[in-house]
Amino acid sequence: MSKEKFVYFFGGGKSDGRADMKEILGGKGANLAEMTNMGIPVPPGFTISTEVCKIYYDNNRSYPQEVKNQVKESLEKLEQFLDKKLGDHSDPLLVSIRSGAKDSMPGMMDTVLNLGLNDKAVEGLIKKTGNERFVWDAYRRFIHMFGDVAMGVPHEEYEEIFSSVKKAKGIEHDEDMDVEDFKKVVKRYKELYKKHVKKEFPQDPMTQLWASIDAVFGSWNNDRAVKYRALNNIKGLLGTAVNVQAMVFGNYGNTSGTGVCFSRDPSTGENYFYGEYLMNAQGEDVVAGTRTPQTLKSLEKKDPKIYKELVGYKEKLEKHFKDMQDIEFTIEKGVLYILQTRNAKRTGPAAIRCAVEMVEEGMIDKETAIRRVTPEQLDQLLHPMIDPKTRKTLKAITKGLNASPGAACGHVVFTADEAEKWVKDGKKVLLVRRETSPDDIGGMAVAQGILTSTGGMTSHAAVVARGMGTPCVAGCKDLLISGKTINIKDKKVKEGDFVTIDGTTGEVFIGKIELAKPKFDERLTKFLKWADEISYSAVRKNAPKGFLVRANADQPHDAKVARDFGAQGIGLCRTEHMFFDAGKLEVFQEMIVANDVETRKAVLKRLLPLQQKDFEGVFKSMDGLPVTIRLLDPPLHEFVPKAEDVKAFAKKVGISPDKLKAKIDSLHELNPMLGHRGCRLGITYPEIYDMQVEAIMKAACSQAKKGVKVIPEIMIPLIGTVEELKVLRKNAENVIAAVFKAAKMNVPHLIGTMIEIPRACITADEVAKYADFFSFGTNDLTQMTFGYSRDDVGSFLPEYVEKGVLEVDPFQALDQTGVGVLVNMACDKGKQIKPELKLGICGEHGGESSSIEFCYRAGLNYVSCSPYRVPLARLAAARAVLLNK
Amino acid sequence: MSKEKFVYFFGGGKSDGRADMKEILGGKGANLAEMTNMGIPVPPGFTISTEVCKIYYDNNRSYPQEVKNQVKESLEKLEQFLDKKLGDHSDPLLVSIRSGAKDSMPGMMDTVLNLGLNDKAVEGLIKKTGNERFVWDAYRRFIHMFGDVAMGVPHEEYEEIFSSVKKAKGIEHDEDMDVEDFKKVVKRYKELYKKHVKKEFPQDPMTQLWASIDAVFGSWNNDRAVKYRALNNIKGLLGTAVNVQAMVFGNYGNTSGTGVCFSRDPSTGENYFYGEYLMNAQGEDVVAGTRTPQTLKSLEKKDPKIYKELVGYKEKLEKHFKDMQDIEFTIEKGVLYILQTRNAKRTGPAAIRCAVEMVEEGMIDKETAIRRVTPEQLDQLLHPMIDPKTRKTLKAITKGLNASPGAACGHVVFTADEAEKWVKDGKKVLLVRRETSPDDIGGMAVAQGILTSTGGMTSHAAVVARGMGTPCVAGCKDLLISGKTINIKDKKVKEGDFVTIDGTTGEVFIGKIELAKPKFDERLTKFLKWADEISYSAVRKNAPKGFLVRANADQPHDAKVARDFGAQGIGLCRTEHMFFDAGKLEVFQEMIVANDVETRKAVLKRLLPLQQKDFEGVFKSMDGLPVTIRLLDPPLHEFVPKAEDVKAFAKKVGISPDKLKAKIDSLHELNPMLGHRGCRLGITYPEIYDMQVEAIMKAACSQAKKGVKVIPEIMIPLIGTVEELKVLRKNAENVIAAVFKAAKMNVPHLIGTMIEIPRACITADEVAKYADFFSFGTNDLTQMTFGYSRDDVGSFLPEYVEKGVLEVDPFQALDQTGVGVLVNMACDKGKQIKPELKLGICGEHGGESSSIEFCYRAGLNYVSCSPYRVPLARLAAARAVLLNK
Repeated sequence: MSKEKFVYFFGGGKSDGRADMKEILGGKGANLAEMTNMGIPVPPGFTISTEVCKIYYDNNRSYPQEVKNQVKESLEKLEQFLDKKLGDHSDPLLVSIRSGAKDSMPGMMDTVLNLGLNDKAVEGLIKKTGNERFVWDAYRRFIHMFGDVAMGVPHEEYEEIFSSVKKAKGIEHDEDMDVEDFKKVVKRYKELYKKHVKKEFPQDPMTQLWASIDAVFGSWNNDRAVKYRALNNIKGLLGTAVNVQAMVFGNYGNTSGTGVCFSRDPSTGENYFYGEYLMNAQGEDVVAGTRTPQTLKSLEKKDPKIYKELVGYKEKLEKHFKDMQDIEFTIEKGVLYILQTRNAKRTGPAAIRCAVEMVEEGMIDKETAIRRVTPEQLDQLLHPMIDPKTRKTLKAITKGLNASPGAACGHVVFTADEAEKWVKDGKKVLLVRRETSPDDIGGMAVAQGILTSTGGMTSHAAVVARGMGTPCVAGCKDLLISGKTINIKDKKVKEGDFVTIDGTTGEVFIGKIELAKPKFDERLTKFLKWADEISYSAVRKNAPKGFLVRANADQPHDAKVARDFGAQGIGLCRTEHMFFDAGKLEVFQEMIVANDVETRKAVLKRLLPLQQKDFEGVFKSMDGLPVTIRLLDPPLHEFVPKAEDVKAFAKKVGISPDKLKAKIDSLHELNPMLGHRGCRLGITYPEIYDMQVEAIMKAACSQAKKGVKVIPEIMIPLIGTVEELKVLRKNAENVIAAVFKAAKMNVPHLIGTMIEIPRACITADEVAKYADFFSFGTNDLTQMTFGYSRDDVGSFLPEYVEKGVLEVDPFQALDQTGVGVLVNMACDKGKQIKPELKLGICGEHGGESSSIEFCYRAGLNYVSCSPYRVPLARLAAARAVLLNK
Repeated sequence: MSKEKFVYFFGGGKSDGRADMKEILGGKGANLAEMTNMGIPVPPGFTISTEVCKIYYDNNRSYPQEVKNQVKESLEKLEQFLDKKLGDHSDPLLVSIRSGAKDSMPGMMDTVLNLGLNDKAVEGLIKKTGNERFVWDAYRRFIHMFGDVAMGVPHEEYEEIFSSVKKAKGIEHDEDMDVEDFKKVVKRYKELYKKHVKKEFPQDPMTQLWASIDAVFGSWNNDRAVKYRALNNIKGLLGTAVNVQAMVFGNYGNTSGTGVCFSRDPSTGENYFYGEYLMNAQGEDVVAGTRTPQTLKSLEKKDPKIYKELVGYKEKLEKHFKDMQDIEFTIEKGVLYILQTRNAKRTGPAAIRCAVEMVEEGMIDKETAIRRVTPEQLDQLLHPMIDPKTRKTLKAITKGLNASPGAACGHVVFTADEAEKWVKDGKKVLLVRRETSPDDIGGMAVAQGILTSTGGMTSHAAVVARGMGTPCVAGCKDLLISGKTINIKDKKVKEGDFVTIDGTTGEVFIGKIELAKPKFDERLTKFLKWADEISYSAVRKNAPKGFLVRANADQPHDAKVARDFGAQGIGLCRTEHMFFDAGKLEVFQEMIVANDVETRKAVLKRLLPLQQKDFEGVFKSMDGLPVTIRLLDPPLHEFVPKAEDVKAFAKKVGISPDKLKAKIDSLHELNPMLGHRGCRLGITYPEIYDMQVEAIMKAACSQAKKGVKVIPEIMIPLIGTVEELKVLRKNAENVIAAVFKAAKMNVPHLIGTMIEIPRACITADEVAKYADFFSFGTNDLTQMTFGYSRDDVGSFLPEYVEKGVLEVDPFQALDQTGVGVLVNMACDKGKQIKPELKLGICGEHGGESSSIEFCYRAGLNYVSCSPYRVPLARLAAARAVLLNK
């Protein structure tokens, strides 16, 4: 291995590396090399490649001679270049050691600064700089960092020594310490080092250097880094690189300084040079916040030459990297150095603005723009938010599941009825419940936000809230609700008190917080159009052209919202939500308690025109786009009269209250999620589905007659055996034939099924014989594949995620290892029987990015999500296409 | 196809066919041929092969000329043989037409007798026999059967005509009808025929013959037959054969007769010639029951020659077919004919006795004995039963699920407490509940039987009842329970009334019925030993040698019962059942409501010795055999104090009742089956599992020290992700190491998991890395694969089975198409990673024959079922081995 290159030098306008060598130089090293090549003044140094990291482990944590040789050569080159020597007694070279893998990664070893100092070099540096205090400060910092970071000496023990020295002298600020104090500190730091390491603090700079390199490579496989890579599915990396770079000092005096700047405003995206700096300071001082940094504007006044130079570099770097840059710089005695540049972190609005404007400036193409913005960033534009600056000053009292994004603030109320009452009185309310039920819809609709103590990401509260675009924190198990009081840890909240929730993070705050409003502007509209261009033209092997986004919408109004947000159809229209209207609910209840088929049929006849009218509205709203309508899904007991209404209802329908109660009791289920619902109702009460199909197709005919382009897709839920679908499809076909005959017309339509039962996936080849389409109901599929109840997971799921038993809540992001295998199985088996089978998803995962990407790979034709999530899904869909290009 | 053979003649001691040609001659035809070859006096005739049935359908319901030719030739041969001609005016040949496929099959066309009669032949037959009444009676019977069976003329309309003729004359019995009456009937029958068929009744015998043959072949594909084959999974048959046979008459006068006999007693199996006959009668008269048949004993006296001849044939046939024969015979004018022989249907006790005695007699080998007895037959010996004769006179008021076999009778009570009270007063009770819960255990234990209105085959009531060996009918949805009254259809049952249930069939009877006791005798013991010999020595490709039966048993007493019944270990010991004891429940409740880990640990310390004692008992009972102990599985809310006990309990543990109530409320779940249970408790409350593992291993050490051979297998339930098992296995290993260290000894043990979550099957390769064994919990796996709650399926599952949407209740017989795919996937993936992985099943399916056979094929090492089902499972296991030999 003698001729292999392990170490890459950079300095003096030339480097061995380049920006595209991140794989072996790491992100930091590659950018240092690139900047050097660009003529940017970067302090010189060298990068030990990631390959050495691999060799280090393969070699039982040691290095081949060739690596040692190359490090030595590069160090000598650096010394020659700067005309200084490491550990020199008169003008010593000091270096920093930094880790840097291809992807940035927390958990790995931090920086060691000022390496090269020892008892002798200190003397030399004092001679050279004439600044004794500066040098002893630098020495104590080095001993601390080296011991802590490279040798595992506890950080806190250093802090204790440092404090005790200050305390003994009766001073508070570091600035008040003098040379003698630092000397004391150095002495005691060395003793501390010896106590832990069982060796003297090393005076030999080469020993210091190699110990630090060992520490960097060793940190590649520490628990935190390994866990981080596992969690983020980072695979195939060789290891981390090590950057050894000459020190420059911003704390040399008043012509020195250090700062951070951004090529555009990272919080708004405005093309404006934004940054902060401190004179006579080191980088950590800017971060620590003990002194208030100044804005770049003031640098322009103070030192126009340096400022102009900095502006030049900023422009050069942004143009070169074609993205907003986050740049660290240091001025040492009037000379400007650039220490680091990287693509800047930014807020959602900034991400969109930058992406769109850079396309308009011709800097990047549309695909790059789409790649640049994450769905999470876009999401920030769609909901009210707690201002990021205000947020820093706040402390959440507790955290639940981030069930529906956006922040909300209001007076706490505990029942849906109360919510409606308070809102009538002109108050804004936050509805707090153990869990919500269909009865609460009215109160949920008027609340600013919803907070529940049980339930998961697809609990009733979560699903309905997302459907309404209302912020929601669910399954917040620290809430102990009793009567009109909540106990949260040691705090009490009563009805009427203000509480604020952040549904984007799951945080809960006591008190009133001002919120920033969302903005859906032209820039966003333009951006999403670009996304659509990409996804509509996507070509895959296992699917027809295009990858669309539909919406889950139950009412004409929701359908309109969805269409305005860019939905390409309705993927899930839940017919049962229509029954909760005051007028319809009582009729439906009458149907449920009917004693025989004939009575049931008679009552259903009265419901038919009401349902038909709803469908007409939905079809009209979605003129020209497909509408998938799901037949009745929830168990009948969700609709029965409440205990207090039984007497009145019994009187109305003319049966004895006892008999009514017995009937209602007989509908009770221990595990309703696994109960008598979905197509099971269709089999046992065929007349219900018959009525619904009739209403759908009558609505379709009547709208078609008016010139509306109607594309109905009838969806049968909860199929577990092919026989169910066979029977129900036949029933539906009979009803449809009768409707067409009476209307003397025909409307093209599909009949398909939701795939949400594991058994349906396993037997999908059979099921496909009777289905024109599959729509994956991944909420239920996740429930059954994991054996989790979405309404009950609050009790353990957060702990699972926290302890790493689960990487993520599988109700939030589709579990590709388990549930995904069943989805793929169903797609494969279905297409094997019917290559033209249409595939979609209408579970809540249809609005989550990683799940959308999975759906794209699985060959689905579309994803469907709640209307308010459609913009996010459009972006995620386009990014899925690009990711798999 | 000119040379192919389609028709097989039999007669005069020679036949074209043999017994082993059932495939093409059908069961009936093959046996007729065989008997003929044996020299048994069988009326001659011929069989049209099953291949013709296939050709008939392939040929658009018509026959090639060659078939017609062969039928004609055979008929001529028959005419020659008997010197009679079909339709002859002086001495006509009459024949019967019967269907007969390889397997007997309801739904196909019945017999047509007396074919060949027409207006002319009637004259001829009268001449020949001199018995005008007999001939006209035969003619009217023929027109009826031919019209009804072959041409679809409604049976009831014939009956109406017949009754009206009798009524007009004022007579009641057929015997009182004379020639003129029959002539009248014939005339009106012919008119009826014409009305329906739109043609005259055919006078041409060949037309009669071919129409009957068509009808037989046509009936092969009628709805009932197709459904029957689908339900019984009968595949690959060519079709049915048609048997055309010369008629003999048992109603020729006093030297004629007809009867049915069995080579042994079909209800006891005793080797005793058992049978009945009637002189001057046709077969249907024996069946109809209008005249009381005589026993064979009387035939011995009446006609010792014929009797001796019959005994000879019976012995010959049994020896020949090596099984108990069910023989039909007819005596025509003093000549004995054998019309049919087949293996006799028999009761369970008879099946066992025959099988064992035939082995002892050297007639059959042990394997054949095992093949002969179905698990259902064996089951009859293990439970109290309603006497089969009494049963005929009873009518069930309704039917539920046959949840736990055996019959039970008692006073109806509605609560577990009442049950205990009544039993204390010396009464036998039947416990009736909507559903049972762990609170009801006391009452369930003392009840004769259990009847519930909801819940499925693996509902709490069903599982516990089977575990206790108590008869149970579950999910009987016709019961409307309100207060202390049940409304069943139009009947009312009050507390204290007698009700009888049959848990083997699911039937419910109002009133007191005497029951027959079960008997487990030496013969059965011997028989099951033979079964064990087969299954213990079974060799499969995908599993180690042997296929064992273990039992699910929770207490030392159950373990003893299981061992006595022949269990080869315990496959499932549910630790939570131990907590329901009075002494332990309160301590466990204290643990649940504890506010912090330390309190919980302190309480658990008090529970430890109690659990340890239970485990010691179980280990002792199972000395030398493995014991699989499942750690806590049910959700904690199953254990919390009842509402009425909250106050007292709060006082006892020293917290406020409100706080206790809030704590209890917070444990409530909407879908407990999918909730915070199983290993999820182990993750969130590690101290509970730690205590259980400690108790298990301390018990193991203490018993091992006493010389008991302890083989503990610790089972972690409800694993859905490998991470759960990884964490919990590590925890268990730590505890075990500590126990061994303290005890200064080591006990070999396994740590494995239940596989009951679909996701565990999908990721079984991962899970196997941390499991020494998999035990399939197919109850839960079925629940989640289908999305059914075992406690709620009563509302639709019976209807599903009735309508054929499901062939069987998947909680009863493992669903091989869906759940089975997951089981196989888990076995394959698990063994792929760990070839030595031990596999078993501990779900309720472990006691059901078809499921046991599936488990054998899947390569499982053992099945485990409730103790009372062990004998049945031992037989089923052996049969599974033989079936797959």
